[in-house]
Amino acid sequence: MSKPNTAIGIDFGGTSVKSAVVRDGKIIDRGDVIETAQHDAKSLLEAIFTVIEKLRAAHPDVAGVGVGMPGFVDSANGFVHHLTNVEGWDEVPLAKLIKDRTGLAATVENDVKAMTYGEWKYGAARGVQHAVCITLGTGVGGGLILGGRLHRGAQFGAGEIGHASIDYRGRPSPYGAFGGLEEYVGNQQITERAAALYRVNRINRPVEKCTPREMADAANANDPIAKCLWETLGDEIGAAMANVVWIVNPEVIVIGGGVAKAGELLFDPIRRSINARTVALFHENLRIVPAELGNDAGIIGNAALVLDSLG
Amino acid sequence: MSKPNTAIGIDFGGTSVKSAVVRDGKIIDRGDVIETAQHDAKSLLEAIFTVIEKLRAAHPDVAGVGVGMPGFVDSANGFVHHLTNVEGWDEVPLAKLIKDRTGLAATVENDVKAMTYGEWKYGAARGVQHAVCITLGTGVGGGLILGGRLHRGAQFGAGEIGHASIDYRGRPSPYGAFGGLEEYVGNQQITERAAALYRVNRINRPVEKCTPREMADAANANDPIAKCLWETLGDEIGAAMANVVWIVNPEVIVIGGGVAKAGELLFDPIRRSINARTVALFHENLRIVPAELGNDAGIIGNAALVLDSLG
Repeated sequence: MSKPNTAIGIDFGGTSVKSAVVRDGKIIDRGDVIETAQHDAKSLLEAIFTVIEKLRAAHPDVAGVGVGMPGFVDSANGFVHHLTNVEGWDEVPLAKLIKDRTGLAATVENDVKAMTYGEWKYGAARGVQHAVCITLGTGVGGGLILGGRLHRGAQFGAGEIGHASIDYRGRPSPYGAFGGLEEYVGNQQITERAAALYRVNRINRPVEKCTPREMADAANANDPIAKCLWETLGDEIGAAMANVVWIVNPEVIVIGGGVAKAGELLFDPIRRSINARTVALFHENLRIVPAELGNDAGIIGNAALVLDSLG
Repeated sequence: MSKPNTAIGIDFGGTSVKSAVVRDGKIIDRGDVIETAQHDAKSLLEAIFTVIEKLRAAHPDVAGVGVGMPGFVDSANGFVHHLTNVEGWDEVPLAKLIKDRTGLAATVENDVKAMTYGEWKYGAARGVQHAVCITLGTGVGGGLILGGRLHRGAQFGAGEIGHASIDYRGRPSPYGAFGGLEEYVGNQQITERAAALYRVNRINRPVEKCTPREMADAANANDPIAKCLWETLGDEIGAAMANVVWIVNPEVIVIGGGVAKAGELLFDPIRRSINARTVALFHENLRIVPAELGNDAGIIGNAALVLDSLG
């Protein structure tokens, strides 16, 4: 019997639950999008079952279901401990519930780790032994591939690059760290910092025109404040990544998430910052590249995780 | 044929080259100590061959030689790229030279990684999947065991915790980082900071009475400046370790090296700092413990590395 190559990947987000049938790393059919906020936990689970059954009916070769969740999970046991922004998902044995209901193999993984796995299997980190992925958005998350394996750590918590500190006496964060990267370069923080920069320069720019997207447009139009902002953000992100480089010595750093859409405005200062903060041995062969799978990285990664769990 | 359990471990240091026959993780016979400074590279290599042949003559069951080197090595190929404080060892195929001369299997590893491996196989990190070792001395080094394997990274450089930064705008280091931990808590830096603390407090204390050892004695005698110094050092080391904890989520942190002899003066503020800077999930089951194998960790680790390389 040949190795199964088709699975359902589910990307459970704070806003919506997206799903697809994935075959050999390619999405071949998408499930109906579920709006997370329109359901309590029980009805959300039922909606997920419905999506699974519908996709499976159309694709009988589906061999399993992989789900990525925004929060703390025990991926060895397919268990959800706690979700960051969705109520009612504390201590849920999700893999077992899916298996009992559908008879399909199921895995549960942290969302950013699943994206990391997707980028490693089929995206920007293909073929390497040691990769770091970082997602820049409302929050800053990360994942590690080390020695050709997803590194989860003792409590499945590894990769929390957004909470690692760049300044041990810096801004406090809700997670205990001082100077955690997310407190500098999260979406909201970027917007607030940009608005403050215009304010101290006595330029009238409303805060809603200070989002990362607006700041990228402004920098591309040669606005000096916006250009300076991206230099600063790149330096800070690079400082955090330099620490990861010293500690795990990766071959590639994959950067994704909405803020990464600023492109070279951000990637160029990130590269300069890492190069300035590490010795040549660590950075001369280091690739720093954008994520390739975009919003599908989680779906593709989760499908790969459940297929690879079948051995 | 039973698996070989006896090898020669060699700890090549800036001051001396120490060696021993190790059986099942225990030192059973020590080789003559070689003073590094009394030799050029060629005669040092000959002296090492002599030690190997003498130990092997006394213990014919020796199955290999593992050497730990203070610098950058390619452990996959047994190659020394560059040593930090010893001249004449650039681009030396050391494992091959040993094998050609003695016929024995040979491995070459970075010294701190070999110590980490020793502490993991036979010391304070026995039996765990994910461990971090840090050595506090003239320099600050580190090593990682992740997923039950020594993590070396893309250029065999992983674990450089002493160069990872705690303050991205902090003190510059010779390695490019700003705010690298070693610039705060290396032996010499501790001494200089202590001397400065006494000076600004208008207390006359000569710098030679400001070494980490003297400062531990002073703190144990309730000297308030020395007690404050250890609090500060522990906070800074804890800040660096908190970053490692967020990134790799280990089960145990093993702390060794001369500065670690300060004991609870240092370990207690390190624990408080890590606990304050991470969420409970990451630290409530985290053990922070002193190294167990002391100066023999490298010898024992190198012997284990060559035996484990035999498969």
